[in-house]
Amino acid sequence: MREVYLVGAAQSDYGSFPDESYRSLFSTAFEGAVDSVDGDLDRERIDEAYIGTLGVGGRQLGLPGPAVTEHVGLDGASCTRVENACAASGVALRQAALAIRSGVADVALAGGVEVMTDMSGEQTRYWLGVSGETEWERMAGTTFAGVYAQMADAHMAEYGTTREQLSRVAVKNHANGAKNPHAHLGFECSLDQAMEGSTVADPLNLYDCCPTSDGASAVILTSREVAEELTDEPIRLSGTGQASGRVGLFQRPTITGIPATTEAAEQAYEEADVGPEDVDFAEVHDCFSIAELLAYEDLGFCEKGEAGPYVESGATEPDGERPVNLSGGLKSKGHPIGATGGGQAVEVFKQLRGEAGDRQVDGLERGLTHNVGGSGGAVVVGVYERGWA
Amino acid sequence: MREVYLVGAAQSDYGSFPDESYRSLFSTAFEGAVDSVDGDLDRERIDEAYIGTLGVGGRQLGLPGPAVTEHVGLDGASCTRVENACAASGVALRQAALAIRSGVADVALAGGVEVMTDMSGEQTRYWLGVSGETEWERMAGTTFAGVYAQMADAHMAEYGTTREQLSRVAVKNHANGAKNPHAHLGFECSLDQAMEGSTVADPLNLYDCCPTSDGASAVILTSREVAEELTDEPIRLSGTGQASGRVGLFQRPTITGIPATTEAAEQAYEEADVGPEDVDFAEVHDCFSIAELLAYEDLGFCEKGEAGPYVESGATEPDGERPVNLSGGLKSKGHPIGATGGGQAVEVFKQLRGEAGDRQVDGLERGLTHNVGGSGGAVVVGVYERGWA
Repeated sequence: MREVYLVGAAQSDYGSFPDESYRSLFSTAFEGAVDSVDGDLDRERIDEAYIGTLGVGGRQLGLPGPAVTEHVGLDGASCTRVENACAASGVALRQAALAIRSGVADVALAGGVEVMTDMSGEQTRYWLGVSGETEWERMAGTTFAGVYAQMADAHMAEYGTTREQLSRVAVKNHANGAKNPHAHLGFECSLDQAMEGSTVADPLNLYDCCPTSDGASAVILTSREVAEELTDEPIRLSGTGQASGRVGLFQRPTITGIPATTEAAEQAYEEADVGPEDVDFAEVHDCFSIAELLAYEDLGFCEKGEAGPYVESGATEPDGERPVNLSGGLKSKGHPIGATGGGQAVEVFKQLRGEAGDRQVDGLERGLTHNVGGSGGAVVVGVYERGWA
Repeated sequence: MREVYLVGAAQSDYGSFPDESYRSLFSTAFEGAVDSVDGDLDRERIDEAYIGTLGVGGRQLGLPGPAVTEHVGLDGASCTRVENACAASGVALRQAALAIRSGVADVALAGGVEVMTDMSGEQTRYWLGVSGETEWERMAGTTFAGVYAQMADAHMAEYGTTREQLSRVAVKNHANGAKNPHAHLGFECSLDQAMEGSTVADPLNLYDCCPTSDGASAVILTSREVAEELTDEPIRLSGTGQASGRVGLFQRPTITGIPATTEAAEQAYEEADVGPEDVDFAEVHDCFSIAELLAYEDLGFCEKGEAGPYVESGATEPDGERPVNLSGGLKSKGHPIGATGGGQAVEVFKQLRGEAGDRQVDGLERGLTHNVGGSGGAVVVGVYERGWA
């Protein structure tokens, strides 16, 4: 199987940008990714592009992929829009890797974009709801926060996870995001604040929920041959995995974990020939605080049921044994749905290359990204390492 | 590069089915595809699935891929929704092929589904419009038929293409579709009828336009090793190509052809090591009569500007030198957006295996599929051959 390398990666700011469009945001991310390549990359060499977007707001529901790549001058190259709800650009990145492995492409672009903040709260709830199960969840009145609230409730009941443990996720990720100039909610919050937020869907409060954001991300992947031309600091995508699960929470064998995460992680670890103990840091899908705790367990960072004590121990703080969401995560950096998975890879790329500014953690050799679609209907996991294979 | 084979393919009926859902239609196509495999295929062996859908009507806009594959019991396998407007399942098929070539999958499913007939005319126009360019076409009032009408008008002005030549496409495809039990509009029409249809967008009339349909398609692709286990009548996907073009017609270098078709076809021919003269028959994207004429030229079946005389010569009739749209095409078989590209492959599969019933043409060795997203924002072309490589 051909090796795959990341040679460039960038994101736009995440936030609320009334003067930007989905095209201009994507352009910012794409130009940043091209500029981040050590050597000179002729953009004409991009053979294949994959764009992840949910198409919130219905701007360009058909062909949104070609609509953003043509805007940056790539109108000749094959471009495919992929979508698995909030895992859209995580999936785009994996498809770009498969295109390189297949031999069809030597240089591939994986990007993502979403504009979400120019709608009413009611419209936003509709568009978030479409990532849940339609007939028996959304149309029965369950909000997306409500779905994760059920998981939180069950985890608290089964394993004794506490209100404070949930809030520690928010406090940690806000502290990280406060050091990220691209973050949507780039401010710190205290444990008291996080514990006393107004209720969104009991037991989840405002500080348990990520914001809805505008933003874009772009990652440039190449074969080993092309990577050798372009850089002396290669970041290898050493493993990827993807799995699906029942779209509706009520149809899963368990709601205190996400089976598709476990399956996708097993594939990625096997391909990379590593285990969870070998992962130095991770960007995980913390759309809600409980989602980060479930990820610790499903990715194998701690034992089942132990995620609460694990976050409390400080293990996932920047100075802990395995920092998680150094970027601020979805919680603080923000969650422009289609851009999120690609944005996770941007942070891993920057940390592994020592380019993460104030939030840089030294000595990181291997990172992981974990991107969830819906409440677990699709999950994609990637493992990234410094250096040539 | 690993070889890719089609071992099973089926479609649901195309039409208006108020008692069906997008899940039940997909199930019909999927079960048909599994049943069409010569040997016994354990569905647990499907490693990767790609589902094309535009998501018309907004039923399950997020995660529609996993939502249909879980319905047929494939909830563990990786499933990715892909969308390039009307080329959605043509793109799904190419992605499934890349997954096999990459080595990640040995058995992959490419499917597509759409439900379109349970909406008002106004809603339908909205959903068709989203495949055109949003800001300067749809929001300026251009319908999707209006976009193709501009191409027809230009082709008539530049090359002398006539009203009768456009109508001959409709007459031929209806005659073919009348022999297809799955066709939505499975009736013949006379040349007079086709020429005198009520105007939709001048110069296009009702008989120049395909219907909006409900339907689904499914194709099972495998590596050579798996194909050898399952069949003695292999159909090889010997070449694929995909290209993008400007999404808006007004931004293209020409409107009397679709540049992305030319580019995608060149890639597919090169990969298959053939030229257009080697193609025995084709399923092309005749969403409007003019689109079939443009395809003849852009695929190299005739010289530029000669498509009108070419159809008039009978060359693309079932007894002509190169039959086109033996299934009835989008015009008569129907056009359930997300299902269409996969459905084209179903017809090629059946014709190459001699299983096309009343519309079978004998002696076919090599077929081509041509699937267009929007008015040419994305195009995917496939070349299929009988036998082992």
